[in-house]
Amino acid sequence: MPQPVVGASTTGTSGPTRMAREIAEQPEALQRTLDALLPLRGEVAALARSRRRLLLVARGSSDNAAIYGRYLAEVHAGVAGALAAPSVATLYAADLDLSDTLTVCVSQSGSTQEIVETLEWAKRCGAATVAVTNVADSPLAALADIALVTRAGPELAVPATKTYTTQVAALAVAVDALAPRPGTLDAGFAAVAEQAERLLSPGDQLDAMVEQLAQTEEVLASGRGLAFGTTLEVALKLEETCLRPVRGLSYADLKHGPIAVVDQQLVTLLVAGPSGPTLPGLVELAATVRGKGSPVLGIGGDEAFRAACDLAVAGPELSELLAPLVLPIPAQLLAERLARRLGLDPDAPRGLRKITQTD
Amino acid sequence: MPQPVVGASTTGTSGPTRMAREIAEQPEALQRTLDALLPLRGEVAALARSRRRLLLVARGSSDNAAIYGRYLAEVHAGVAGALAAPSVATLYAADLDLSDTLTVCVSQSGSTQEIVETLEWAKRCGAATVAVTNVADSPLAALADIALVTRAGPELAVPATKTYTTQVAALAVAVDALAPRPGTLDAGFAAVAEQAERLLSPGDQLDAMVEQLAQTEEVLASGRGLAFGTTLEVALKLEETCLRPVRGLSYADLKHGPIAVVDQQLVTLLVAGPSGPTLPGLVELAATVRGKGSPVLGIGGDEAFRAACDLAVAGPELSELLAPLVLPIPAQLLAERLARRLGLDPDAPRGLRKITQTD
Repeated sequence: MPQPVVGASTTGTSGPTRMAREIAEQPEALQRTLDALLPLRGEVAALARSRRRLLLVARGSSDNAAIYGRYLAEVHAGVAGALAAPSVATLYAADLDLSDTLTVCVSQSGSTQEIVETLEWAKRCGAATVAVTNVADSPLAALADIALVTRAGPELAVPATKTYTTQVAALAVAVDALAPRPGTLDAGFAAVAEQAERLLSPGDQLDAMVEQLAQTEEVLASGRGLAFGTTLEVALKLEETCLRPVRGLSYADLKHGPIAVVDQQLVTLLVAGPSGPTLPGLVELAATVRGKGSPVLGIGGDEAFRAACDLAVAGPELSELLAPLVLPIPAQLLAERLARRLGLDPDAPRGLRKITQTD
Repeated sequence: MPQPVVGASTTGTSGPTRMAREIAEQPEALQRTLDALLPLRGEVAALARSRRRLLLVARGSSDNAAIYGRYLAEVHAGVAGALAAPSVATLYAADLDLSDTLTVCVSQSGSTQEIVETLEWAKRCGAATVAVTNVADSPLAALADIALVTRAGPELAVPATKTYTTQVAALAVAVDALAPRPGTLDAGFAAVAEQAERLLSPGDQLDAMVEQLAQTEEVLASGRGLAFGTTLEVALKLEETCLRPVRGLSYADLKHGPIAVVDQQLVTLLVAGPSGPTLPGLVELAATVRGKGSPVLGIGGDEAFRAACDLAVAGPELSELLAPLVLPIPAQLLAERLARRLGLDPDAPRGLRKITQTD
């Protein structure tokens, strides 16, 4: 029998969960972050002047933000990007020449040892370094040439929400600083907070999506291009909050093998930006997957995309380049409501700590 | 009730499956490939002379080979590597400067349109190009500056086995050509075929692993560093052959969230090289995951690693750098036997074609 999907947390306290409150704080957190960081673009551009490469270092949710940063660097700024393999630094201590590289290290706490060590390694290899962190007096901020400190405020729920979207905003700022023509994203940056606010009221279909997911053991999330990092973040958020196995796969990787396991026992969740060259393929994928009997839930996209899904909620009215700053919001709401629907505490999922140490 | 795990294929023909035969052909296929390609190292080195970067382009199984190539480039050759995001080329047509880059495109057929288009894009961006393919007269081989043609011979079963390990061998050759000190891997290359032969007789525990997996709906595969690409390939092979959801996660990413869903309903499959700095962490991970009640199966590693697992089969006696050329073999045997144990045809899994076209 369905349980109520609105109302009190399951922790015994009254009122919304911490996760719900932190989701709702995102319009302000994003505005504060953009106000603080957009003026630093000149400083980042100067640091990056003779650097032709972007190397991103992150784990977990931050890694999903970094994937967005990589696509944005290549598509918007024309700078080749890569995601670091931290073990190359921390375990193998590889000797690379990074004198042509700007390294951006992303860590909410700024104190994940593996990320701090990888930043130190990148410096030894000759890289210029930027830290993206929510903690101004963290080791990561202290070590980097420039610290881009997000203004999310303290985050108490274990699943990252406002610290994730503000990281994405900080990466958009850092990458925009590398773009050959400045200012082309400024109108978009100015609209981010308002679009975040709009997405906090996602409409009726979100609760139907919660019910659909509550009846399903397995979820596969897919997306592509600039929204691919968002897709992986949506998958991680549902998995860690609702303790369901959720896989995030790119549209193309899905077609290379795992599509064999798509059937009516799986729900497919598609995540798409509002426009851009990846959309037609995702509309086609929605039809293919529905043809295999898998219910298709959509987040974002355009009207044709949402019409191709069984259930869908709209994303932001922003360019494809900046949509990922707020596109996670409907999925955060989905994860928070689904956790409560399943009798779980979204603020403190089993087995996870706020700061994860890996070596 | 357990069905026999040895004997005839389920296709109605007698004798071993095509997949079993192709697995068994690997010692010869690897030797032919290494004999053909090792003499081309000088040519690759000359092509790469002024290039400081390695960009790998691939999808599916080939992408798992490429991940190995990236780690090997950084750890063995000191060359910074990256995996391309093909949509950046094919859909966004990003304008990057790749004049400092050697691009290696990996495709068994050499005719996957997305990979061919990405090679053409890399050339337009100024990259030098190498093709790794099993088809000498393929478009990819024709377009690249140098074609490293693997000698796997025709592969008829849909799951890639000998074309995968020979791709890994070709990537080892290509990367070794970039290493500052030549010849350090030559003794290892000479031992590859013999080690492949040895792994074709994996011992009794493999059948016990088949039985364990046959009773389990979900599998999580984890590994790290130089064996991480092998881990993802093992996951893909089990998934596409046995139609079970199998996730491949790095050790570190597992600790950043998904470990919350590890419990006795999941089997954890750990993949490890025979030595190296990632091993202690994997032994510890085996203990952690067993502590959560998940049965742990191990492939490779050293004796301490195998002792930390519930069931394990040994990997090759090769350096950590070259172990991935043959480390997939026990997992290929596992996938082939498990498919038959489940009444499936390992040669032709549902819903997959040999050449996958993505745009």
